[in-house]
Amino acid sequence: MKSYLDCIPCFLRQALEAARFATSNPTDQETILREVLAFSAKMNLNDSPPRVGQMIHRRLRELTGNEDPYLQVKQKFNNLALTMLEDLRGKIKKAPDSLELALRLAITGNVIDFGISANLTEEQARQEVEKTLQTPLNANIKQFKQSVNHSKKILYLADNAGEIVFDRLLIEQLPTKKITLAVRGNPVINDATIADAQTAGLDLLVEIIENGNDAPGTIIEDCSPQFQQKFHQADMIISKGQGNFETLSDSDHQNIFFLFKVKCPVVARHINAPLGSLQLYHNKEHS
Amino acid sequence: MKSYLDCIPCFLRQALEAARFATSNPTDQETILREVLAFSAKMNLNDSPPRVGQMIHRRLRELTGNEDPYLQVKQKFNNLALTMLEDLRGKIKKAPDSLELALRLAITGNVIDFGISANLTEEQARQEVEKTLQTPLNANIKQFKQSVNHSKKILYLADNAGEIVFDRLLIEQLPTKKITLAVRGNPVINDATIADAQTAGLDLLVEIIENGNDAPGTIIEDCSPQFQQKFHQADMIISKGQGNFETLSDSDHQNIFFLFKVKCPVVARHINAPLGSLQLYHNKEHS
Repeated sequence: MKSYLDCIPCFLRQALEAARFATSNPTDQETILREVLAFSAKMNLNDSPPRVGQMIHRRLRELTGNEDPYLQVKQKFNNLALTMLEDLRGKIKKAPDSLELALRLAITGNVIDFGISANLTEEQARQEVEKTLQTPLNANIKQFKQSVNHSKKILYLADNAGEIVFDRLLIEQLPTKKITLAVRGNPVINDATIADAQTAGLDLLVEIIENGNDAPGTIIEDCSPQFQQKFHQADMIISKGQGNFETLSDSDHQNIFFLFKVKCPVVARHINAPLGSLQLYHNKEHS
Repeated sequence: MKSYLDCIPCFLRQALEAARFATSNPTDQETILREVLAFSAKMNLNDSPPRVGQMIHRRLRELTGNEDPYLQVKQKFNNLALTMLEDLRGKIKKAPDSLELALRLAITGNVIDFGISANLTEEQARQEVEKTLQTPLNANIKQFKQSVNHSKKILYLADNAGEIVFDRLLIEQLPTKKITLAVRGNPVINDATIADAQTAGLDLLVEIIENGNDAPGTIIEDCSPQFQQKFHQADMIISKGQGNFETLSDSDHQNIFFLFKVKCPVVARHINAPLGSLQLYHNKEHS
């Protein structure tokens, strides 16, 4: 997905929020904002929004000398999700369609996104989960199930820390031997890295790889050759989050299921879906 | 008032809204947005926000070849306000404190501001007036009355079209012989020019001058020598609107009453007042 003119004021707002999150130094805050302005003035609108997120957060890490400003917040939301794990697993077990509820919860976990807002509270995350438990997923789950059954190699692209614990609930409902889980190669915002996958206990269930890149999405040409090979060899991609959607929505891959929450008006308009809705969106069904 | 980092995402949002208001050509919309980005990357934060507004709207007029993109909207809101004039004049006459109600209505008229949002409807403007009729002004009106009585020369700085009809209601309560009304020297957004003052019938009541500039505020050093002289010779300035406040809040003039609605969180924080509140704010009381 390309960037729209409406993304630009939002990049600036996100940059300022992120700068304030990462540093209390007003000079650093101003520097990063001015750099994002200069970068955006020349940016190619054919680039996807996560390309700008990548630039913002690389510079923030350089300026602050902090390689992982969101480390604490990642741990906090991993821990929050872990306290909910056992209870939700029980609910999934008892549900009339366990996979359907696990899908819903995995998509809901996508609310834990500090790229969209640096002010998310644990209480808000809990409320989102409660809401999800009441609302069925309006999507073609049969197609998803068939694809899982027919595929030999499934690549699961994680998105955020915290959220990755909810991914575990879904992965537990899937044939784990077929699955490789991919995380970011380096810290960016609160996106999940290998440490978060381990905290979620996913290393005991599935193969885990890093994608070799630090974009808050999957810019395939920037990822490692190993990741690219996994991506192209997979019969099915399960892609979590809006950042992975924005970077992979135009991919040539024939079978990507995008699981995400619609978090901004631009994406809502792009896919003609309500803001805030939960999506199980197949790439070739809409192309 | 200087610009804050929080103003910058807002400048971009305003530029995009204004571009969409002024032209349906996406290339022009993109051009103006990129220019505002480049300008903002280098801007001096000691400049007041209307300096950026001035730049945005100058370039929009150049790009579109339209010298007054807001002409129709100015006429529409002048007409709306004129239809309300007789009724409101009656209410002011019957009010226990006529000047107090006239002040309130003049400040409320400040809601008619296409710089803040290009989507204001007539219905919203009507609702604001209705709300104001119910809410007393929490301000030192005695000081204002005394200043009017003691001053020999009062300079009244108008802000927007539509709003200027509400200014007439206030001016009718003041000693008109002492008053000079100043309007913008050139069209910018929906700010009032000489034509709007005439539409409001103010040329029959008071002397009217142009300020010789096209900023959506009063950048005193850019105004005509005639205007500057009037400004410095006046014993009292009545300054309407947030743009005039942002450009004159640090003025050396000893006696400025700022009448405006607090329309953004940055100004609210700057003066420590609630967003949306009506202000009758004396410069030297707060300095």
